[in-house]
Amino acid sequence: MSSLIHNMADLRDSVQKQRPLVHNITNYVVMHYTANALLSLGASPVMAHAIEEVEEMTTLAQALVINIGTLSTPWVDAMLLAGRAANRLGKPIVLDPVGAGATQFRTRTALRLLDEVRVSVLRGNASEILALSGEQSQTRGVDSMDSASEAQSVAKRLAQKHGMVVAMTGAIDCVTDGSQTILVSNGHPLMGRITGSGCTASALVGAFCGIESGCLLATAAALVTFGIAGESAALSHPFPGNFSISLIDEIYQTNGQKIIARAKVSTENVAWR
Amino acid sequence: MSSLIHNMADLRDSVQKQRPLVHNITNYVVMHYTANALLSLGASPVMAHAIEEVEEMTTLAQALVINIGTLSTPWVDAMLLAGRAANRLGKPIVLDPVGAGATQFRTRTALRLLDEVRVSVLRGNASEILALSGEQSQTRGVDSMDSASEAQSVAKRLAQKHGMVVAMTGAIDCVTDGSQTILVSNGHPLMGRITGSGCTASALVGAFCGIESGCLLATAAALVTFGIAGESAALSHPFPGNFSISLIDEIYQTNGQKIIARAKVSTENVAWR
Amino acid sequence: MSSLIHNMADLRDSVQKQRPLVHNITNYVVMHYTANALLSLGASPVMAHAIEEVEEMTTLAQALVINIGTLSTPWVDAMLLAGRAANRLGKPIVLDPVGAGATQFRTRTALRLLDEVRVSVLRGNASEILALSGEQSQTRGVDSMDSASEAQSVAKRLAQKHGMVVAMTGAIDCVTDGSQTILVSNGHPLMGRITGSGCTASALVGAFCGIESGCLLATAAALVTFGIAGESAALSHPFPGNFSISLIDEIYQTNGQKIIARAKVSTENVAWR
Repeated sequence: MSSLIHNMADLRDSVQKQRPLVHNITNYVVMHYTANALLSLGASPVMAHAIEEVEEMTTLAQALVINIGTLSTPWVDAMLLAGRAANRLGKPIVLDPVGAGATQFRTRTALRLLDEVRVSVLRGNASEILALSGEQSQTRGVDSMDSASEAQSVAKRLAQKHGMVVAMTGAIDCVTDGSQTILVSNGHPLMGRITGSGCTASALVGAFCGIESGCLLATAAALVTFGIAGESAALSHPFPGNFSISLIDEIYQTNGQKIIARAKVSTENVAWR
Repeated sequence: MSSLIHNMADLRDSVQKQRPLVHNITNYVVMHYTANALLSLGASPVMAHAIEEVEEMTTLAQALVINIGTLSTPWVDAMLLAGRAANRLGKPIVLDPVGAGATQFRTRTALRLLDEVRVSVLRGNASEILALSGEQSQTRGVDSMDSASEAQSVAKRLAQKHGMVVAMTGAIDCVTDGSQTILVSNGHPLMGRITGSGCTASALVGAFCGIESGCLLATAAALVTFGIAGESAALSHPFPGNFSISLIDEIYQTNGQKIIARAKVSTENVAWR
Repeated sequence: MSSLIHNMADLRDSVQKQRPLVHNITNYVVMHYTANALLSLGASPVMAHAIEEVEEMTTLAQALVINIGTLSTPWVDAMLLAGRAANRLGKPIVLDPVGAGATQFRTRTALRLLDEVRVSVLRGNASEILALSGEQSQTRGVDSMDSASEAQSVAKRLAQKHGMVVAMTGAIDCVTDGSQTILVSNGHPLMGRITGSGCTASALVGAFCGIESGCLLATAAALVTFGIAGESAALSHPFPGNFSISLIDEIYQTNGQKIIARAKVSTENVAWR
């Protein structure tokens, strides 16, 4: 375990040094916040969605983050174009399937992206992951799942099916490639009272995957970093407005040393722990 | 009066308990801020504007908020689609006609929405309300209106014409269904120095209407809640940047008890006061 | 020099008094932040991008700010329409060529705007200015420029070529009309750690140009105002989240008196210094 956490700590410091450029095709609601979060982390954000330029922008970037939070057809076209470019170039893709399961358009779009693009990391909540698993029936939703372990099993099967890492975030984040799993317990409930905290997690995952090809480790390191920042922000800011701003400050201040001191992770079948 | 204020107080606490889902088709400028305001209130925001999904999203929501602040033709199409769906389903619609009267496109769009969709609450400033009243001539604008009472008369006639509640906000908010009127004096001038405070008011009205079919009461309760939060935020934050963030904190902390202690309302012809 | 700084100070106070309406066709990421920055300055922001209304909105405004940060074809069409309207009406246009040089679409769009519209002020960083200068070869980028003075020479030639003011911002801002140049040293490195600080500078330039036809002076005054606000915000807020919010507060508090006390400017060939 100690080796795993040290790897995460090194990775967080490396993001700061290497300043990966993260190309985001994301939703209108969170663009400003996630751009600031990436800058605070030490990464460089760029937002671009026009079909005329997404391939070229992906060429310049170290990672592509696709988020369907306010999708429309022209944006989906751009997501597919950029995704295929990232695949050709061997660049990691993080997919955030915001609202999959809520509307057919979102579910269909997320499934199409998973089908037509090799996604490196799928980051969603339990409801979204279940909606994309094909294991959801009409009568059995996320609320009916008996336990966290059942949800984690779904995540593992979805990871295996697509050969990707699935990060199912919640009170405990489950990061799995289908065989190895890292559970992250860092974070704070206030993160659920601000808009776009999931989207921000996905953006940070993009930055970490931009400098580390081992997406399981990179994703877990991003979630640990974000979770620790959330814990720190909540210490002195109990209400969501100032909490959300201090969270940006705390991302800026989270370094390898803090990760070693405060990471809360457990693993299943992780060889290099 | 005491009974009216107690009803408002109960309603504010009920929003927290029932967490209504508010579907927003709103402008790019305020999306992030209004989503955070709704979350702080205890409601659940969703932003979705694609014609492929707006009807389905409205089906899931307890209220629909339409805001024309950065409108374009595809978005207007989505507003009409979602509005008709809300009408079919009997769900309340709040319309914020941002900039009506400033350009013909905005005036025409707002009038078309009023014509083709049964709006529950129209929330705007005096200039916007006047522009939609049909009482504006080339030579007589909002600045020429002699008094607040004249503007309120325009609001009442517009409410009667469309069978809706009109909330004309300003130093004093006038909430009227054409016969009954509630005047709200809560609020603070700094709310006019941050972008989207009107849009945020409309979003909060959506949350209250999502749990209370009496839109006159629901709208007034939302404006009282928002106004009290603004007063609290201004106490310790005299400048607009930190004021806007603390306003989110204060919405979070505004509860029924504070409303009873601090609501400033007066009524005309309100039977259940 | 004293006369120049007094002119800047007067201009800053005049913005507060005259409250110019600034029409922004800008990117999704910064809309909320720049709207708040303009309000804090004492100006009135409006965001509108639909081809149905941009000409009419420009008619109402005192200045037009065009920013290509998240451009797409329909928005470019609107920028051209609004730009031509501003030219017909003699209203100043500020162009922010975000990401020019990064993708062909951005470079081509910025060049097309410079070609088809008479731009009053081009505000960008050294990389963007160089990309639009036509002096960039395949093998010689911004990083290879030996000195700030070489970059400033490029800015001056570009200003002469298009008969406009070029504001090349960085650690030192160079504002030039090709013959006269004002160098502004106000500002703080944290401004580079928040998203949209360049875009915000451009928006503020729009407000100053809205009340002062001498764009060289107006642009420098805007950059001095913004830089002083950044210095003040950094004094008590060393991290980017709270820094960005306090920057809005400090714009609000920056007045002519502060400019006289703290402006750091030097000039070349400025007659009226």
